[in-house]
Amino acid sequence: MTSPLAEYLDDFTRRDWQTIAPDDVDDPVRVAVVGLGWFAREWALPGIARSAFTEATVVTDIDNEAVAAVAADRDLRGVTPEELRDGAAADGYDAVYVATPNATHLEYVAAAAEQGKAVLCEKPLESTPERARDLVAACEDAGVPLMVGYRMQTDPAARRLRDLLDAGVAGDVVHVHATMSQTMLGELGSDHDQWRLDPELSGGCALMDIGIYPLNTIRFALGADPVRVSGRTRTEHDAFAGVDEHATYRLEFPGGIDATCTVSQNAQHASRLEVTGTDARLILDPAFYEREDRGFAVVRDGVRVDIDFEQVHQIEEEFAYFGHQLLADEPFYPDGEHALTDMWALDAIYESASTGEPVELDGE
Amino acid sequence: MTSPLAEYLDDFTRRDWQTIAPDDVDDPVRVAVVGLGWFAREWALPGIARSAFTEATVVTDIDNEAVAAVAADRDLRGVTPEELRDGAAADGYDAVYVATPNATHLEYVAAAAEQGKAVLCEKPLESTPERARDLVAACEDAGVPLMVGYRMQTDPAARRLRDLLDAGVAGDVVHVHATMSQTMLGELGSDHDQWRLDPELSGGCALMDIGIYPLNTIRFALGADPVRVSGRTRTEHDAFAGVDEHATYRLEFPGGIDATCTVSQNAQHASRLEVTGTDARLILDPAFYEREDRGFAVVRDGVRVDIDFEQVHQIEEEFAYFGHQLLADEPFYPDGEHALTDMWALDAIYESASTGEPVELDGE
Repeated sequence: MTSPLAEYLDDFTRRDWQTIAPDDVDDPVRVAVVGLGWFAREWALPGIARSAFTEATVVTDIDNEAVAAVAADRDLRGVTPEELRDGAAADGYDAVYVATPNATHLEYVAAAAEQGKAVLCEKPLESTPERARDLVAACEDAGVPLMVGYRMQTDPAARRLRDLLDAGVAGDVVHVHATMSQTMLGELGSDHDQWRLDPELSGGCALMDIGIYPLNTIRFALGADPVRVSGRTRTEHDAFAGVDEHATYRLEFPGGIDATCTVSQNAQHASRLEVTGTDARLILDPAFYEREDRGFAVVRDGVRVDIDFEQVHQIEEEFAYFGHQLLADEPFYPDGEHALTDMWALDAIYESASTGEPVELDGE
Repeated sequence: MTSPLAEYLDDFTRRDWQTIAPDDVDDPVRVAVVGLGWFAREWALPGIARSAFTEATVVTDIDNEAVAAVAADRDLRGVTPEELRDGAAADGYDAVYVATPNATHLEYVAAAAEQGKAVLCEKPLESTPERARDLVAACEDAGVPLMVGYRMQTDPAARRLRDLLDAGVAGDVVHVHATMSQTMLGELGSDHDQWRLDPELSGGCALMDIGIYPLNTIRFALGADPVRVSGRTRTEHDAFAGVDEHATYRLEFPGGIDATCTVSQNAQHASRLEVTGTDARLILDPAFYEREDRGFAVVRDGVRVDIDFEQVHQIEEEFAYFGHQLLADEPFYPDGEHALTDMWALDAIYESASTGEPVELDGE
């Protein structure tokens, strides 16, 4: 392979942000977990526990039984959502992780901000750009740090992709393909998680829930934001009435680079990101899901090199970064402003899907 | 794997159109080859020779030296383009294969039709839909059979893809990705082939020359024609001034299925077609180039099966089909009307690239 690639692979540091050694952490950031859906139970709580920089201390959910079960199982303090918002347990946590349905992020984040707590909020940031803007403002007004849960940005596979692109291994980027799909009703299981089918709670389904991964990961990898988008959404089955079951969208980046993406909540599982440049193709496949190992290949002049690298617990990495940056008093890369760009882009794709025309993004 | 897949793979017949055994052919179809660019010399002439159903007998080109060299090398009759059009060597061939620059197809096909010769014309059929329509009309008026050189349609990989989709192995198709690129100035070499940079001769570059492969192969695989298209073209380098260096396009098929495609004449070699359905993903990679083996994979529930199959000389297969159908007096699947659909679709994508809006196709 090319010399820049070989050099880079030798140099890669998984956590280039880490200045505090995990072993030196005596008082990890205490996290209140808000929302106990499948992802929080199966991934976030284990990830928080694995990370040396964080520990879960408090949990809440609108489902009292889920709170009681998780609190007992993990020896945590369970509180009601009202208690959480009122600060009744505020002495027991330093930060709040919000993993509730999109349209309820604002109320919990605003409450946490009023309590002076740091916030890690799941993506998409809220159900509309306007509510997301209010969420960001609440944190800014209270002077609390806000990170948004873009777990790909702390994943070594995506970081390698970004670094290889930065190093020029692909040459000039010409175009990008991404696809991500799942059978939501099958893969995600319980009714607890089917709020994504309610447009008032979710703000949208395939595009909001899945489309944000290719969108944000491509932004991260290219180090650029789209200037124009177009898209189409489609719903075939009654279960998805009122929301988008499938979506196709195109993101145009500065320099005219097109990223063309498809996502679906009801298709065979797929998870792939491919960047084609003048000098090489860089492929993440699988790319996006926490529940699969990531793959990374470089293809150049007919030769494909599959790169072996350490697979990580994506959510451990995300919370390690969150906790570390708080302890080190360093800012977050995926912050509120960064997330607002996604919210406006997603909104513009829905607008394009409605009008049939491309929509310019002016960096609102 | 699924039972339909296993059954199908057992049953697959590479040449399901073949009713005449190759060994039984005493008088293969005699072919005049018009245009001696890289593809004709390196691929078409060897393919014609390999096929039991065809033999080359006459060659012509505007380059007299190329004619003399090829004629001597292969012991063929070399004639001038005027002689070919005038029918001076018409007793020496039964069919004419036209592989000249796009905008010169009409004159050669019309001459062949007047001579009562069968025609195999390269794709795209001409430089504009209007000229292509005249070309089809010339063959119809003269009552001569016209096949268009969609070599993917006789390739076992594409035929397997179509047959697996027909058999329902992918379930309902949700969306399609395709990408195809090359470094045209590097990979294709000689100036002889750079007429693609002249919009008068080519009618376009990345989209006309490369974009037609994903477009036509997806039509073939899905057994359907696009109802709406949108696209964008882009030119970065001076060498491509006046034509499209890169293109991105979306094809919407009946039922709302989106195929999203990127092509480039100046990007790292790529050649991939992926169909995502509710039950499986079917992947051709490499997919499109005559100069690489094709790959075929089925991915389902996290399991990827790479299917081994006999690699063929794509152009041998194409000419075998051409010669066979003529000898058997059977029609061609990729005929003039089929090719016109591509011409209108490509024209509509250029229109969309110009206006920024999607264009409806009304099956002109």
